[in-house]
Parts: sequence; structure tokens; C-alpha cells
Amino acid sequence: MYNLLGPMRIIEAASFVAAPSAGLYLAQMGADVVRVDQVGGGPDFNRWPLADNGASFYWEGLNKGKRSVSLDLGKPEGRELLAELATAAGDDGGHFLTNFPVSGFLGHEKLAQRRADLITVRVMGMADGGPALDYTVNFALGFPDVTGPGPEPVNHVLPAWDLVTGAYAAFAMVAAARHRAATGEGGEVRIPLSDVGIATVGNLGMLAEVQFGGDRPRYGNDVYGVFGRDFTTRDCERLMIMAITPRQWSGLLEVLGLSEAVAAIEAAISVSFARDEGMRFRYREMLVPLVAEAVSRRDRADLAAAFDAAGCCWGPYQTMSQAIRDPALVAANPVFAPIEQLSGFTYPVPGAFATLPGQDRGAPVRAPRLGEHNEEVLAEVMGLGSGTIGQLHDKGIVG
Amino acid sequence: MYNLLGPMRIIEAASFVAAPSAGLYLAQMGADVVRVDQVGGGPDFNRWPLADNGASFYWEGLNKGKRSVSLDLGKPEGRELLAELATAAGDDGGHFLTNFPVSGFLGHEKLAQRRADLITVRVMGMADGGPALDYTVNFALGFPDVTGPGPEPVNHVLPAWDLVTGAYAAFAMVAAARHRAATGEGGEVRIPLSDVGIATVGNLGMLAEVQFGGDRPRYGNDVYGVFGRDFTTRDCERLMIMAITPRQWSGLLEVLGLSEAVAAIEAAISVSFARDEGMRFRYREMLVPLVAEAVSRRDRADLAAAFDAAGCCWGPYQTMSQAIRDPALVAANPVFAPIEQLSGFTYPVPGAFATLPGQDRGAPVRAPRLGEHNEEVLAEVMGLGSGTIGQLHDKGIVG
Repeated sequence: MYNLLGPMRIIEAASFVAAPSAGLYLAQMGADVVRVDQVGGGPDFNRWPLADNGASFYWEGLNKGKRSVSLDLGKPEGRELLAELATAAGDDGGHFLTNFPVSGFLGHEKLAQRRADLITVRVMGMADGGPALDYTVNFALGFPDVTGPGPEPVNHVLPAWDLVTGAYAAFAMVAAARHRAATGEGGEVRIPLSDVGIATVGNLGMLAEVQFGGDRPRYGNDVYGVFGRDFTTRDCERLMIMAITPRQWSGLLEVLGLSEAVAAIEAAISVSFARDEGMRFRYREMLVPLVAEAVSRRDRADLAAAFDAAGCCWGPYQTMSQAIRDPALVAANPVFAPIEQLSGFTYPVPGAFATLPGQDRGAPVRAPRLGEHNEEVLAEVMGLGSGTIGQLHDKGIVG
Repeated sequence: MYNLLGPMRIIEAASFVAAPSAGLYLAQMGADVVRVDQVGGGPDFNRWPLADNGASFYWEGLNKGKRSVSLDLGKPEGRELLAELATAAGDDGGHFLTNFPVSGFLGHEKLAQRRADLITVRVMGMADGGPALDYTVNFALGFPDVTGPGPEPVNHVLPAWDLVTGAYAAFAMVAAARHRAATGEGGEVRIPLSDVGIATVGNLGMLAEVQFGGDRPRYGNDVYGVFGRDFTTRDCERLMIMAITPRQWSGLLEVLGLSEAVAAIEAAISVSFARDEGMRFRYREMLVPLVAEAVSRRDRADLAAAFDAAGCCWGPYQTMSQAIRDPALVAANPVFAPIEQLSGFTYPVPGAFATLPGQDRGAPVRAPRLGEHNEEVLAEVMGLGSGTIGQLHDKGIVG
């Protein structure tokens, strides 16, 4: 873990991908993230993928380096403890990350009665509080309609909206903390998946595109607006090859020996593929067969070396098992270190996405056992004595 | 724009989606983001989608509310000006966001000779500095291998890795600024797309899943590990229906009149779908036909009302043109406001993803004309007089 954020303490009461990934990113940058769950585990505690001993690889992946407190949130005393933790005094505290409903016992207005400068970052499904998950949001946005070969809609497997929302929630938390440091004001930040989704459609220019031009057709693996798609080599390897910048384009043509052929096409139809990457897309039916033929006559190893030397942009098609065995991605990548995770399995575990040159990244820290830090956190944050904590334990409030 | 971050000034020298989207998120939270481009436009200035007058909806979508400076970065004087802007004195400045190469004139070590506490957030392709784009990274990670109906790999259309990287870069910038405020230390934060990708595979538990269990098969639109997929109503509407929480599951069965039938299956095979959402996935071949039959006997409007009343999680399948005409998503959504954009077209434009209750969101601000703020920024940040700026103009250094 890097230490950009210590000693900021985050109380996280959330599940699934979006909010817990925000907590993960904050923890990996040095925040003290205390995840509070229902005794016995929240709704994502057993989520697949599972190890063969039943432990959730998913849960342990998203909760690395956090502390864990488990409370019976079905009981008033358990809810009270969570509210107290979220609003504990001090500059370090008062940062609350949640995906509980606006209207419940973790509503910001209610909590702010305990601590006026509380910061609440709340991940939501729909902006009106209605339920939504990554896959329902994506299905409603139109991306499945333009993904894949057609005619059926293809939903994504990667929970992209959860992940964008998670990273944005981490950003929002630190931005709100900066504002509080400057002004003394806290407040609530609500981040609905549905708004992240539709606003991204706007940010990428697709709202205007569709409003003024109608729906985009499916282009399969052709990347819209540039030159890019998958091609197959002589030794039957599939490569994703792209060219956006002028250098990538000229490098590609040079490696494939197509510079003259393409120049002749440019002359014939009076366009410059070098200057205008959009023309490479518009006239892809002329360009793709040329590139496909040239790639099909070479082996992957030969092409890879030539592409790299020429600064071309390409990537292999890999299964995930190939990807995780790619040394550049995992074994030789300083982002990863093998540790024994909570499940008892030892495997390479990533730290922060970012690398801070010259700073010690440290080893990743395993996910906590559920409730592992009950006593430690209740004593440290709320000043409870061991007798009181023991009583809460006996009553099943702390699990 | 909200104002959590003012008066933080960010100098952005970047193109495409990842880094410019980070600048956008920072601007939408109140930072003064100055985008510096090559005179005439950087490599993404004309990127598709385009308006019929040739303006890029893409460029104007990602650069809303920023200021624009255009310099001839092919000339030493232009490079010098950019380096000076990035490292200008004062607490507000010294925040540099870029995707230029580590080894070029915008290398952090070189810039830090001008300002020791400079913060550089650098978005990269591969961690070793090699070129990579969202679609090549995704192709190498294994997601296309498990997306869609098969057998061909299906690359995504949404540039998910760019977007996650962008939101994370915004987070990293504010985190590094917090660290500088506390310690006086700046530094570089490198965020390669490839690391964001493979570390996410780890965070989601998929690295362990694949390492110990092998590649996941394709499941089409079935969501792994829970109950979720698309179904078609009597009136031929396609809905994405999911059930992760116990409430979503019991609500679904109730609305569809399947509680007894499912209880009988549970008894027959001795599992509890209510308690264990993974079993809903394992035994989906028993459950999906039941749900499909029940959904096929009802109309969408009827089901939608019943699902909403029961707290079920569902979403419609929409094309993007349907999505942008959905009032809840755009017209009646306070995140959006119609403004005249740089292109001259007026359409609904999104502000920040987040909503801060009780704070004024303000209207979105259009993207700048290229170089619109040359004089303003050079005068304000670098103290240059109008005579000097005029000379730079005449020499073509400022465009």
C-alpha cells in the first residue's frame, strides 16, 4: 500500500462491486478503511467465484487491506454502533462510504445530526433510489445493441459501470474531504450507476451522435472511427491491431509492406488516411482486406517484433488463463505479489493500479476475516472498554 | 459544476479518453483545468463521432468546462511554455495530467527540476511505456473470450478500461494533492491501462478463479454466479431481470407466481435459492425456463409495475436512441441541461456524475475553442504581457 491518504479513516457499509472497490482503492492509497457488515456476512459475502473450500474469491479480492467489523444491523443497538462509527469525532473520521438506501437509518440528514461535517459518499442504482445493477443499467443504455456480431444484444461480462462508479466514488470522497478541510463543510455525494452510465454516453459524444444521426449500427470488433479490429496470422494467432496516431498508421503500413498500395488508394479516392484517422474507418472495406492478407502471411512472433520496433499498437487475443500466465501482466509485474489470501489459497494479488516511482509499494494485504477487527475498532474509534464489547458480543450485537 | 476542488489548477496535456476524462471529472468538481494541445489540434481533435459540419462530438464531450491553450509543441519555445505552465508556482498549480511518454520532454524528473513538489499523474498504455489502447488491452485480458454467444471473441464497444483509468486518475490527482498539502512532497503517479485491467481481474476474484479452476466458459447474457439474464415479454419486449438479494429473489417469484414451484424444486434437490444466490446460477437450467414462461405470458407494462412494487431489479433492453429519449435518463434528469456546444449544436449535456443534495449544480459549460484561452492563461498563470504573447503568436508558438 502506498501512503497518500493516511490517516484518513473511511467507514464502509456496502456490498457488491462499486462501493467496495472505492474502499479498496482508498485503502491501497493508505486510508484506514473499516468495512462494516452484517454478522454472518452481507449480501455479497458468498458471491461467486468461490474456492473449492467455499470461500469467496470475489469477496477477498475486493476487501484486501481493509479492517472488518460485523454488527447485527437488524437490531437497534447494531445500527446505533454503525451510525456512531460513521460519525465518530476527529479530522481522520467522518468519511462514510455506503450503498444503503437514502431513506434508511443511514440517511445523511439523520447521520449529520450526530456530526454536522460528515461526508457521505453514497453509491446508488437508479437516481430515484430504485434498484439497478451494472447489467440492468448497461442493458438499458444501448451498448448491448451495438456489441457483438448481432442480431441479439450482447451484455458485457466486465461490470464496467460498477468499476467506473467505484473509481469515481473514491475520487468524490477525496474531493469532498479536500472541500471539508478548506471550508469545514461536509455533505452528501450521491453517485447513481444510471447517471454514470448515461452521462458517459454524453461525455463520449454518443448522445449527440445518436440524437442527430440515429443509432450506430453494429460494427463487431471494428473499432468505430479509427482503424482497428482483429486479424489472424499465418500460425492462426488472433491479434487486435489498431492505428490511431499517424505514427501507428505509418508503422503498420511499413511493417506490412502496404505503404505503396495504400498511397495508391489515397490518390484514387482523394483522401489522406495518414492525416485523417476517420477516413481509415470510413474506407475500412478497402483497407481491412489488404491488412488481413498481409497479416495472414506472417507468423505472430515475426509480426510482434516488427510491430514493436515500429511503435505499432497491437495486442494478442488471450484467454484469461493465458493472460494471468503472461509474465508482463502478472508474474513479473511489481503491481502483483503472491500472498496467502483469506481463503487459505496463495496466489498473486494486486496492489494499487498506480505506480509511484521511488516510493515503496509494499506487499498487498489479505482481506480480513469477517469481524476480525471488532474489538480493535470499537476500542480505538469509539473508546469502548473490553467489558462493554464483551457484553455486546454476548448479546449478538457484535458478531 | 460543483465547487469541491477550487482553486486547484490542472494542466492537462493528453488526448483520447482516459486522461481527458480525468480532467473532465476534475473540472466538473470545480478545478480549473487547462487543456494544452498542439496548434491545430492534437491526435483526438477530429475523432469520431463527428457532426455534419465536421466538428467532433467526441472532443467537445470530453472537454466541457476546460480552458484551452494551443502551442506548437514541435518547437522548443512551445515545449518550454508547456513545461512552465505545468510547473508554475503557487499552491493552486503544480498539478499535471498527461499521457505523454515518460521519456519525453514532459518526463517528471525533468519537470521537477523546475518545481520540486510537482504532482504528475501520467496515464500510460503498457506499464513499460509501450503503446496500448483500451481495445488491445481488453483483447489481451480474456474478457472477449467469455463475452457473447461464441465462438468468436467479442470485444467491447464501451471503452471501459479508459473510463476506469480516467476516474482513477482523477482520484489519484486529488489523493496526491492531499499528500502534498500534508507533507510538502509531490511526485509522479503512473497509471497504465494494462495494470488497471489485469489488477481488476485480480480484484474481482477472477485471477484466483482461473488459476485454480481454469477458464470460465461463455455464459452469454447469463450473469455469472447469480440469477440474471434477459427474458422476453408477451408483447415482445426484452427485459434484463436479476435477483441478487433475498428480497429481489422473493419479489421476482411472487410477481411471477412461482414461489410454490420453486419451493418444490428446492425441496427436491435440497438447496435454498433464497439463502444462496450462487445456487440460482448453478441450477439456472431449472429456473430460467420457469421464469421465461411466466414472463412470456405478461406484457411489459404490467410486469414493470409489479416488479417495481415488489422491489425487483430489472431493466429494459433499449437501443441508444431509446435510452437518450428516456425522460428519467436525460430530459427529466437534473444531471443534464441542453446547451449550445462548441459545434454549434444544442443538445442535452451532462454535468458531474454525482449529485450533491442542497448544492447548486449549475449548468454544464461547453468545450472551449482550440486556443480560446491562450492569452488569458499565459497572462494569468505566467504573467506574460500582451506584447510578449503577441510575439509568440506571430512566431506561431501560440496558435
